Amino acid sequence: MTGVVSSDLQAVASGANHSIEPLPYGVFSTGALHRHIGVAIGDSVLDLTSVVDEAALRSTTLNAFLALGRERWAQVRTEITELLTDPSHRQRIHPFLHPLDEVSMHLPFDVADYVDFYASEHHASNVGRLFRPDGPPLTPNWKHLPIGYHGRGGTVVPSGTDIVRPTGQRKAPGESSPTDGPSRRLDIEAELGFVVGVPSSLGTSVPTADFAEHVFGVVLLNDWSARDLQSWEYVPLGPFLGKSFATSISPWVVPLAALEAARLPGPAQDPAPLEYLRDTENWCLDIEFEVRLNGHPVSRPPYREMYWSPAQMLAHLTSNGARLRTGDLFASGTVSGPGPDQVGSLLELTGDGRDPIALPDGDTRGYLEDGDVVTIAATAPSPSGGRFALGSVTGTVRPAVPRR
Amino acid sequence: MTGVVSSDLQAVASGANHSIEPLPYGVFSTGALHRHIGVAIGDSVLDLTSVVDEAALRSTTLNAFLALGRERWAQVRTEITELLTDPSHRQRIHPFLHPLDEVSMHLPFDVADYVDFYASEHHASNVGRLFRPDGPPLTPNWKHLPIGYHGRGGTVVPSGTDIVRPTGQRKAPGESSPTDGPSRRLDIEAELGFVVGVPSSLGTSVPTADFAEHVFGVVLLNDWSARDLQSWEYVPLGPFLGKSFATSISPWVVPLAALEAARLPGPAQDPAPLEYLRDTENWCLDIEFEVRLNGHPVSRPPYREMYWSPAQMLAHLTSNGARLRTGDLFASGTVSGPGPDQVGSLLELTGDGRDPIALPDGDTRGYLEDGDVVTIAATAPSPSGGRFALGSVTGTVRPAVPRR
Repeated sequence: MTGVVSSDLQAVASGANHSIEPLPYGVFSTGALHRHIGVAIGDSVLDLTSVVDEAALRSTTLNAFLALGRERWAQVRTEITELLTDPSHRQRIHPFLHPLDEVSMHLPFDVADYVDFYASEHHASNVGRLFRPDGPPLTPNWKHLPIGYHGRGGTVVPSGTDIVRPTGQRKAPGESSPTDGPSRRLDIEAELGFVVGVPSSLGTSVPTADFAEHVFGVVLLNDWSARDLQSWEYVPLGPFLGKSFATSISPWVVPLAALEAARLPGPAQDPAPLEYLRDTENWCLDIEFEVRLNGHPVSRPPYREMYWSPAQMLAHLTSNGARLRTGDLFASGTVSGPGPDQVGSLLELTGDGRDPIALPDGDTRGYLEDGDVVTIAATAPSPSGGRFALGSVTGTVRPAVPRR
Repeated sequence: MTGVVSSDLQAVASGANHSIEPLPYGVFSTGALHRHIGVAIGDSVLDLTSVVDEAALRSTTLNAFLALGRERWAQVRTEITELLTDPSHRQRIHPFLHPLDEVSMHLPFDVADYVDFYASEHHASNVGRLFRPDGPPLTPNWKHLPIGYHGRGGTVVPSGTDIVRPTGQRKAPGESSPTDGPSRRLDIEAELGFVVGVPSSLGTSVPTADFAEHVFGVVLLNDWSARDLQSWEYVPLGPFLGKSFATSISPWVVPLAALEAARLPGPAQDPAPLEYLRDTENWCLDIEFEVRLNGHPVSRPPYREMYWSPAQMLAHLTSNGARLRTGDLFASGTVSGPGPDQVGSLLELTGDGRDPIALPDGDTRGYLEDGDVVTIAATAPSPSGGRFALGSVTGTVRPAVPRR
């Protein structure tokens, strides 16, 4: 369960001004310490257990802290900033700083419900052309609502968890009947995940304006996808086993408070969304993703191109009265921009494997091979100028396990 | 959160032979007692907290007990049966028996992931004809795998919880654009839910033969459905808000151990399923459902007609290596038989509202109206002959709540 690529987080410190650090939260352990909550600062983790007077931080997951709400989140952030910037605290906090490269990171929160959206017009159009070549790329509902579906909360795993190649039913168009076997089209999806802190009541909806009252922060997310399982199973009730074997998230939850400089208006929406989906809060974030395959950057998807904002996703998710719980996770769907090197999946990057990409070491890839390592990293604008890193989410593909 | 229709459970006692009682487990409270675990026996609940030496039963949910596994479940069942049948224990247990009609029932376990299948050929064909009139009723994959999708674990509610009519986007075929408003086609789905006790490991699959090692028992389930929201949203990623506002379950979990006399071979399967889906364990259960609308029986769906067995559903759910957690709930999908009065939804019963049903009091219904009370009850064969009741799941439709 270890394996944060620490270089992706050390870049967090590159702004060098501690008063405007992103201060992401995570759950770490060391040889001597069981799971403690900490914040990342430069190349260190500050163990919060003993330095902040907040019982919710003395836990093995972030859930109790997430439930406290925006006002308390802000107070704790102010207090931590003060601890880190006021030299008078230096001696007090010193024993609670651990080098990032000496800690193991864990799943930062217990996931309640996991929902995956489909909010990139570029991605949805690319997939539509590949999966449904005979129809228009977007379904008639696409520009009226942020399409989403429930995924499997129980298989959300922390960065560094090995991904066993899934086995399952697949039927290529030329085959007369399906076969059971290891996926031959194992893919990734680079996404941004939103972490819900404050619950809502059954039977009520959450307006777009209340987004930051409920959502604490973001993680990077890899929605691993077995395209052959998915394309055979998904009509009529949607993706199931093609997705449910694993969803990896970065170990550091970056608070919304650290993303103020990243906020942007989203693309123009035409037709105008229905009233309950109107959003004037500019939650389309200037986050730049980088997808690396075996260490080589293969794509740079821009989050600012996403059609539906996360505030619209949340309003839609609750528009029928579905309640939120602390630990709910909803993801953006694959982040893809307009350019061929801005797409967040190999499906798009290789035209469903027909046009393999060449890696600098001479290898080519249509879909993932056993042993492949995929890392998704991202940056956002820092209030001080420049960009800070949001950490990374990584996973290594392991061979399929034969059935008993 | 109260509201089990106790007459549906008192029938549990009609076999009158305590040694072969179903002994379902639930979580109850009284004016004086906070949530305790109990078993139903006749018209009483036996509080297990003090009479069985098992720490997992001293909890406010069944989860810890569910995790103990089949051997311990059997031991506790034997012990409870002895307490109830051996007259020497009568005085000891007497203080721990509470009249069923004086207790409040609660959600019996914390739901982890909720998956809904689509295992009735009659239901899938009926829905296919209504939703996709231009194509064959079953999609090409239907007879090769038990189709399923993830639902929202956080909106699984106990019997008796009011159901607020969901609001959301719907677009009738004749309308040029969608509108936001209360569902006009609110429906039910009568289903059987399977409660997972013993977890499995990420990356491994559970063979059909291991079904009873993982699944503890069953609940009755009403998968409330807003057909207008569902039909507008569900292409291409499946049902989302049309289902996620509420799923009601009966408060009593009936152990598989009580269903031995109900086990049947399922319908012949053609084509023969792939190896990992072969099932010789006869888990197609002889459970007869009854759907009541405002007290009037309107349908009697037979579970024995289900095409896919729950052991096949579980094997499929884990076939890609997705792990199970204690508290996972998977449901059969709507139980519908071949007859017009054997279908488990109003969609089917009324031809999507076009042929309303007449109720004995003179009312007619296409879909549900505010104030309607839906109760789903069921019976299974008792080893002593006759049938016992599995309890019931009930809910009342409340008017939509305007958005803030």
